[in-house]
Amino acid sequence: MKALLTLVKIGGQVVDDPAALQQFLQDFAAVEGHKILVHGGGKKATALAEAMGLAQNMVQGRRVTDADTLEVVTMVYAGLINKNIVAQWQAMGVACLGLSGADANLVRAQRRPITAAGIDYGFVGDVVAINTEFVAQALVQGLHLVVAPITHDGQGQLLNTNADTMAQSLAVALSKTFQVKLVYGFELPGVLRNINDPQSLVPSIDPAAYAELKAQGIISGGMLPKLDNAFAAIHQGVEAVTIGPAAALHQLLSGNAGTTLYGKTS
Amino acid sequence: MKALLTLVKIGGQVVDDPAALQQFLQDFAAVEGHKILVHGGGKKATALAEAMGLAQNMVQGRRVTDADTLEVVTMVYAGLINKNIVAQWQAMGVACLGLSGADANLVRAQRRPITAAGIDYGFVGDVVAINTEFVAQALVQGLHLVVAPITHDGQGQLLNTNADTMAQSLAVALSKTFQVKLVYGFELPGVLRNINDPQSLVPSIDPAAYAELKAQGIISGGMLPKLDNAFAAIHQGVEAVTIGPAAALHQLLSGNAGTTLYGKTS
Repeated sequence: MKALLTLVKIGGQVVDDPAALQQFLQDFAAVEGHKILVHGGGKKATALAEAMGLAQNMVQGRRVTDADTLEVVTMVYAGLINKNIVAQWQAMGVACLGLSGADANLVRAQRRPITAAGIDYGFVGDVVAINTEFVAQALVQGLHLVVAPITHDGQGQLLNTNADTMAQSLAVALSKTFQVKLVYGFELPGVLRNINDPQSLVPSIDPAAYAELKAQGIISGGMLPKLDNAFAAIHQGVEAVTIGPAAALHQLLSGNAGTTLYGKTS
Repeated sequence: MKALLTLVKIGGQVVDDPAALQQFLQDFAAVEGHKILVHGGGKKATALAEAMGLAQNMVQGRRVTDADTLEVVTMVYAGLINKNIVAQWQAMGVACLGLSGADANLVRAQRRPITAAGIDYGFVGDVVAINTEFVAQALVQGLHLVVAPITHDGQGQLLNTNADTMAQSLAVALSKTFQVKLVYGFELPGVLRNINDPQSLVPSIDPAAYAELKAQGIISGGMLPKLDNAFAAIHQGVEAVTIGPAAALHQLLSGNAGTTLYGKTS
């Protein structure tokens, strides 16, 4: 039987709030089994770029990463946020190692080509390969991992990579060796039938239900690529993907909060 | 017989110069055996602090590290410099892992107490313990290490630590398991009999010669603590300490450049 690996991605709403981050780290520390935390950036990168007088250019929700912006996100994600999380988790008794994708060739990426619409995202990387052997060795040694969404191209160039994609790529690659539960921290309670009604949570979705929810137009907009990606992860071996508030981690993992996506129609 | 470990500390004059850094990384890549690179910070931290409008306060050559400055050095040392070195070294075929002292509890430190003279260095850490077991596992797995001079106190607090001290502490702790050669990159050719004459290099110093050079006043000022620390490392098991230009790494390691300190009078 494969060992359990819980992989959680947290975003700005946790990273930017010291009290929320501390509580989350304590909650995650109490989860049994191997643990990987992928963190996004939050407001700090934007604030630093502003302080340095860099103009930020966002296209379709993604930061266009010029050379100066790459420096900023490398400093903030792989330096400030990553090392502070590691120090805090160590203090809670979690033996952990902070990594960028360049470290031990953890995540190799390729620079995104200019799109058909002529958009150049700059130093943005799409994941090519994961060093699963290194991860397995580290986890088996009793280390838990804290991963910043910075990758490299194997030619010496660092690249900025979407944290959701990073978490998904790691989850898929590691599902060959581990029983992987993937949790996406989210600003909403989960998938809602009515975006204005937090009570309209859909607690679980299998592929049949997903097709129905899409046909009904209940899942649309920004949720579509998120859930498409989550189901792609499931079809590639990830046991379950749960989307919901990181503040409710234990309930998310026990199926008592958030929306959990399963591969098999129950 | 213990395996050979070469531990090199480079400072600002290499880190700040992309061409020099690339050449150094290539030279170090060609060195046989296990490798650890400890890097200092250089001008980037000062430039970033200035861009952010932080006043820098230096006391006796050490940066006073207030909370904002700690953020800056964590970003620059553990993020920007560390990850760029890792990406470049990976591209040269060196499987390597970038670390701060917080990662895997590599270097635990304690915040320096206020000195008798009333100086508070702020978030500056003096080394308490090294996780040699983790380092040995990583090295034996074929990973080389790139270490940023940021430590943690085990209570969740990151600390700024002198890179020379970090290199020395690692060298001493690892000398129980490895045959350690420690190289300090230096802006001068090595120890000079006459500071104004690069030809007056002293190629090697043993404890007897050191006592004589000190008595003659040839070693004084800033070189005194540097060499005292180097001899302390040798007395604690480090095989040899060489001080000289990082650009001449191979000559430094073969005894054809720099000043090498030995424990035994030959």
